[in-house]
Amino acid sequence: MGSEGERFIADIDSDFPEWYQDVVRKAKLAESSPVAGCMTIRPYGYALWENMVRVLDAAFKECGHENVYFPALIPESFIQREAQHVEGFAPECAYVTHGGGKELEERLVFRPTSETIIWQTYARWVESYRDLPLLYNQWANVMRWEMRPRLFLRTREFLWQEGHTAHATANEALEETLTILGIYREFAEKCLALPVFCGEKTEMERFAGAVRTFTIEGMMKDKKAIQAGTSHFLGQNFAKAFDVTFQNDRGEREYVWGTSWGVSTRLVGTLVMAHGDAKGLNLPPRLAPTQVVIVPIYKDESRARVLEAGAELAKRLKAAGVRVKHDDRDQHKPGYKFNEWELMGVPVRLELGPKDLDKDQCTAARRLSGEKRPLPLAGIEAALAVELEDAQQAMFGAALEFRNANTHAVDTYDDARDVLERGGFVLAHWCGGSACELTMKNETTATIRCIPLEAEDEGGSCVVCGSASPRRVVVAKAY
Amino acid sequence: MGSEGERFIADIDSDFPEWYQDVVRKAKLAESSPVAGCMTIRPYGYALWENMVRVLDAAFKECGHENVYFPALIPESFIQREAQHVEGFAPECAYVTHGGGKELEERLVFRPTSETIIWQTYARWVESYRDLPLLYNQWANVMRWEMRPRLFLRTREFLWQEGHTAHATANEALEETLTILGIYREFAEKCLALPVFCGEKTEMERFAGAVRTFTIEGMMKDKKAIQAGTSHFLGQNFAKAFDVTFQNDRGEREYVWGTSWGVSTRLVGTLVMAHGDAKGLNLPPRLAPTQVVIVPIYKDESRARVLEAGAELAKRLKAAGVRVKHDDRDQHKPGYKFNEWELMGVPVRLELGPKDLDKDQCTAARRLSGEKRPLPLAGIEAALAVELEDAQQAMFGAALEFRNANTHAVDTYDDARDVLERGGFVLAHWCGGSACELTMKNETTATIRCIPLEAEDEGGSCVVCGSASPRRVVVAKAY
Repeated sequence: MGSEGERFIADIDSDFPEWYQDVVRKAKLAESSPVAGCMTIRPYGYALWENMVRVLDAAFKECGHENVYFPALIPESFIQREAQHVEGFAPECAYVTHGGGKELEERLVFRPTSETIIWQTYARWVESYRDLPLLYNQWANVMRWEMRPRLFLRTREFLWQEGHTAHATANEALEETLTILGIYREFAEKCLALPVFCGEKTEMERFAGAVRTFTIEGMMKDKKAIQAGTSHFLGQNFAKAFDVTFQNDRGEREYVWGTSWGVSTRLVGTLVMAHGDAKGLNLPPRLAPTQVVIVPIYKDESRARVLEAGAELAKRLKAAGVRVKHDDRDQHKPGYKFNEWELMGVPVRLELGPKDLDKDQCTAARRLSGEKRPLPLAGIEAALAVELEDAQQAMFGAALEFRNANTHAVDTYDDARDVLERGGFVLAHWCGGSACELTMKNETTATIRCIPLEAEDEGGSCVVCGSASPRRVVVAKAY
Repeated sequence: MGSEGERFIADIDSDFPEWYQDVVRKAKLAESSPVAGCMTIRPYGYALWENMVRVLDAAFKECGHENVYFPALIPESFIQREAQHVEGFAPECAYVTHGGGKELEERLVFRPTSETIIWQTYARWVESYRDLPLLYNQWANVMRWEMRPRLFLRTREFLWQEGHTAHATANEALEETLTILGIYREFAEKCLALPVFCGEKTEMERFAGAVRTFTIEGMMKDKKAIQAGTSHFLGQNFAKAFDVTFQNDRGEREYVWGTSWGVSTRLVGTLVMAHGDAKGLNLPPRLAPTQVVIVPIYKDESRARVLEAGAELAKRLKAAGVRVKHDDRDQHKPGYKFNEWELMGVPVRLELGPKDLDKDQCTAARRLSGEKRPLPLAGIEAALAVELEDAQQAMFGAALEFRNANTHAVDTYDDARDVLERGGFVLAHWCGGSACELTMKNETTATIRCIPLEAEDEGGSCVVCGSASPRRVVVAKAY
């Protein structure tokens, strides 16, 4: 602690990847662990994740979901039951082969996702239509043996929630898939302050084992896309692989319909890249571990008075439900503290000096805009509630403006390539064929992020082959 | 669902282990998973765990702890750094040997506990006395290759919290160890409704790598002891193993002092065995996923009226913060429902029939005592709050009475053996020697559960060898 070098972050415009690593490390969100490809989530990063968990968990429960916990280790034979699933996940699996001093008879996979062990169990839990739906979710760690790990974005172990539901009809399962997509979207917009494109993945980009995959896609500050959450309609794939049937109300046996859906600690990296700037992190008030920091400004003769007032103010704000810190460290100057809390992305800073106290006020500075204004101490609780809500809205507004400015409807392949080269999202017509999709991917490294759910029906011609296309899709380079 | 056989539970007096398994399965807390030795925690069991997590997490944070997350996989070489630690844990380790299609250069251990990886990291986080203390906790899954697994009590994978703190002085670390023990004790008494003996473990029963281990020990319905939580003073053992030093305020380098402490999903099994009875579970209101169940009692002609009133009552109670269920299932008779909710341990049942409605009341039945009394619907929110608090107190009272009735101060080895044979806790003098401790253990299978912190100083003679003893210790057969 203490040296300026520890707070130096790379230039966001010229080296975004390095800037990202610097911010994650120097804002103390997380660091690489001594275990290759895995990370240590530090208190500040974990508190951010906990705030996300709280909001999402409440939203899932509000619409009838309950939490469960299935084993982390899955027999290898289970993973092999669903053909597409094993093809998608086997290369990334980590295997436990020894336990209790012996070699195991069957290798166990550290779950890369839990469909297989859960559907194996659902076979015993479902008997009649009266047992349906099963609306379960679990918060868990998962393991995927990534070859190019990046903190939060792609680590071998990560934390997530995975919902796994079972239904009597295809319609009900599809409705569930979309309900969850709606929860993810609302969470992204209202909490992450991140506008997202909601849509369906192409066949090529689908979850291994799903019939339809839906996604929310946000734009990062380098104009690349991130998949921030996915919701899958599994059809009867896993029910058939694990023989999960039920007796319907006419006494006939049918296969169950399924969904699965998840978001992960990747959302922490998403927040960093969606809102960060040259100074570091920029956190939306609804999720910020510290919403307000009080920085006392004093000389020797005013020290006692200012620190006392700062402590008193912190106490008042805490009582009002604000997540507040009073930075009363004596060894650092105010300027040092300003920089540090800006790096940490605290949405609002309150400066408190003897002149402020003479006027019974403090000075509020907003992280996003840097604007400063005096705030009377009388009734500051209410004023800060408004300030924080404004800051939340302003972040969403800024992100939306940035995304709109960097999203381009184009009608030719050359124009598409040009945008993708410069950076940004392309809205382009696509015929629906895998050949054209693959051509784009191979030539630009960009992928179809989604077929937007709310796109206008607007006939056009595929930018690759010229065939008819019913609507534009979102194309971008992505994380 | 539906057949009476599914609710049959073994006799608690004649076959307690079978009774336990039946209650855990039939109250749908958990079940054995297809993965040997691991369990699936069902929604009802997980909700119970979530309620425990909420209370404990708030208590840890209240005294300055923050949550973090360290990797689940630990390089084998880390585990081997602390001599006692590796001796204690190596036989129970599960190893990941392959990942991403390749054999790993070094085997990774699925964490049995995280001291090693955490202290390896603390070496980088601690530089000066200003960085101390580190007060961190994590909620995580751990893996210990148990050979005789039992649901919740001893499963290969379990969920827990593990606190790991680092301090500048021995005193401060010891104080932390005891602060946490105090939190565990208060949680046991106030939430689990379980009186506990608080004390120190003998050298033989200490955590592998600790200098001193403290424990809370409760009595189960079969008069055996359960270790419900432990808090360890690690001295400088891990600091020395991982070279964690700091510069003190006089500019000298010193090794850091450590603690670690944890409780696990074992607490769910503890609740079952502490309060269960012939009818099944018996849950304390502060932790019960459902605190109150409303059972409507109707015939065809009163059906609509009663169900409507039940739904209305549920809505009122929910608004008042009560965790309530309205059991409006049409296919089951009230008697069937009474049995089911008794099996599930719901603390208070409200019966609601047309005669009750005529009198603007319902009938409240308490799970623990079976007592029934009318409760006016006007102001029922306040009356139920009192009722639930009373039920909580009554459970603690009953558990305390049971423990006192089955705890015996004895002065001879024969008397001790006699109590341990019949079942119960023994308070006996012990000289402090491992030889006498081992004799007792070998001859009775009972162990010294703890040297109570609050025992009166009362001189006596060791029941085994007759040497002088300063105070009585708690001896019992245990889980």
